[in-house]
Amino acid sequence: MQERIKATYRIWGNDVLAVAEAIRIEQTIEFPFDLAEKWIQEEVVGWVENITDSKKGWSDVTITYDLGTVGGELPQLLNVLWGNSSMLPGVRLVDVELPQSLLKSFKGPRFGIEGLRRLLNAPERGLVGTALKPMGSSPAQLAKMAYTIASAGFDTIKDDHSLVNQPWAPWHQRVDAIASAVKEANEKFGTNCLYAPSLNLPADEILDAAREAKRLGAGSVMVLPGIAGFDAMRMIAEAEDIALPVMGHPSLLGSFVTPQQHGLAHHVVFGTLMRIAGADISIFPNFGGRFSFTPEECLQITGTARQPMGNMNPMWVSPAGGMTLDRVEEMLNYYGRDTAALVGGALHRGDLYENSRALKEIIHNH
Amino acid sequence: MQERIKATYRIWGNDVLAVAEAIRIEQTIEFPFDLAEKWIQEEVVGWVENITDSKKGWSDVTITYDLGTVGGELPQLLNVLWGNSSMLPGVRLVDVELPQSLLKSFKGPRFGIEGLRRLLNAPERGLVGTALKPMGSSPAQLAKMAYTIASAGFDTIKDDHSLVNQPWAPWHQRVDAIASAVKEANEKFGTNCLYAPSLNLPADEILDAAREAKRLGAGSVMVLPGIAGFDAMRMIAEAEDIALPVMGHPSLLGSFVTPQQHGLAHHVVFGTLMRIAGADISIFPNFGGRFSFTPEECLQITGTARQPMGNMNPMWVSPAGGMTLDRVEEMLNYYGRDTAALVGGALHRGDLYENSRALKEIIHNH
Repeated sequence: MQERIKATYRIWGNDVLAVAEAIRIEQTIEFPFDLAEKWIQEEVVGWVENITDSKKGWSDVTITYDLGTVGGELPQLLNVLWGNSSMLPGVRLVDVELPQSLLKSFKGPRFGIEGLRRLLNAPERGLVGTALKPMGSSPAQLAKMAYTIASAGFDTIKDDHSLVNQPWAPWHQRVDAIASAVKEANEKFGTNCLYAPSLNLPADEILDAAREAKRLGAGSVMVLPGIAGFDAMRMIAEAEDIALPVMGHPSLLGSFVTPQQHGLAHHVVFGTLMRIAGADISIFPNFGGRFSFTPEECLQITGTARQPMGNMNPMWVSPAGGMTLDRVEEMLNYYGRDTAALVGGALHRGDLYENSRALKEIIHNH
Repeated sequence: MQERIKATYRIWGNDVLAVAEAIRIEQTIEFPFDLAEKWIQEEVVGWVENITDSKKGWSDVTITYDLGTVGGELPQLLNVLWGNSSMLPGVRLVDVELPQSLLKSFKGPRFGIEGLRRLLNAPERGLVGTALKPMGSSPAQLAKMAYTIASAGFDTIKDDHSLVNQPWAPWHQRVDAIASAVKEANEKFGTNCLYAPSLNLPADEILDAAREAKRLGAGSVMVLPGIAGFDAMRMIAEAEDIALPVMGHPSLLGSFVTPQQHGLAHHVVFGTLMRIAGADISIFPNFGGRFSFTPEECLQITGTARQPMGNMNPMWVSPAGGMTLDRVEEMLNYYGRDTAALVGGALHRGDLYENSRALKEIIHNH
């Protein structure tokens, strides 16, 4: 039997059957069912495979789709899974299973967990990372900051996701200065700290900017798929002339996961989609920080990041968002060592170098 | 005094002041406020300008942002308005006002209401449009359908948004066949029906596909900014070598507007953002159809589509989603004649040509 795409929707309310019927049509032919040719009714329209009981006020409805509906492309996969159903209240896409033959269409994380471990000479430990901020700082200030942090032995230094082409630090000037500073530290200390500029740039510039970032010496790039689109991240991750580790940032993606009784499950967005789209590191807000993700949601993301998925490399998780040094130990215990720690503002309270060293020690000694 | 970007957030709960403070920092410096330089605290961090009373369980908080935070680019505008705040529950961006000096960075709708009226020789009336479906149909079937509908005097014929590179009708073959059929009808009947292929394609192909669509004779293109990103739509709309009318489709955007007490107001997404990103026609689900938009939300979208906004052309609204012929009169009364009617599946119940003529007559005689 041919493999199919499997999507499970949680549907609230008393009309579960009618909504399930609407979804399997809406996500495919979007056309009066009775007017479609018989083979289209049978093959192109989704199949309702299972409906759980609704004692809790909702049912989980599993719908499978023919591979042909997607045509092997990520934008259309998003369309089939969630496109127009995004406008139906009381529906949440809680799980997705993609068949091997579709997964083959996507390369996934180029480096993944093992690839970054080799690149960073970190065979077992967690990764030590931070973000450069605040906005308003000059390229020279940010470069100095990056040098200090790289000197302390960090693995990754990313731009704050909001740093793009502000007048205080235009993209090219800033990326050049920071990449040079990190390179200098790497040469001096024999390290391989990866600097990831934010690629939150216009659609007609983003791919060239990734190339330019590499030319300027950046060892990684960060993409915001909620703004650029997941497929723009895939494009950058798969480009052979770039071939840098990719960080995926959650900006705007909160709208897909945060609402109750709507949207997509956290692990679908920050696990499945990030990984298919080629993120080597998936950044999301840790529980107990500034945002609202629960410990269970964070753990589900982690599960999806690491589970077998075709031939795709497993992906690093990077729980972030207001993390402090005193929570790092707890994080590593909770998520395990395949975790890319990301501590931002907290490093700046007191001496930046000392705090950075302290964070590195916690992670290296865990 | 320098112009600023004005965003109004509706905040539910008892912590309005704390959440407002969090947003103005999160959306800009994302850094401990007390550790930022004084000028950054004062100039780069957002300003809370107004807080309404909270008798209803929520307050509207107006925050303004320095233009420098955005740097004149749409991806970063999205980031400042909603980026990380998308992960805060109980917060909704209910209004946005952009200053002239920022609006100048975007061209907006190339044709807009008047431009499409000239192109279609329709000085006063509403536009008559449909979508080609169902998925599974062959290029020849879709082309025949398009010819029939164009012969009936339609202004616009778009692909169903889900038609991309399915094996049953691969993109190039399909667009070629349909564009030729519509061209043939236009030549025979002296009309100027615009065919809009769906550009729900990979990020590395979308711009070239728009060019290829034009070369194949398509008179318009349709973009899905919820999947491709709003800035990809802007890129295509602004490309001088394409210069075709652009339709914006709501796929995936439901996640931004549908949830209660979260997300962005309907008129911000389908009015402000669609228009800034260059949609000549903004498609959204009409009230009373298959989806959940209310009459008020639809009217607010319409207001924002047509209100003065820098030098930008006003934009057509296209309320769709399960529309039938017997609702068209009501729609035109409700939205006025600057409405691009979109009736899909309902045209196929009975004789396609007769139904298409009937729809055309209703709109031309209104």
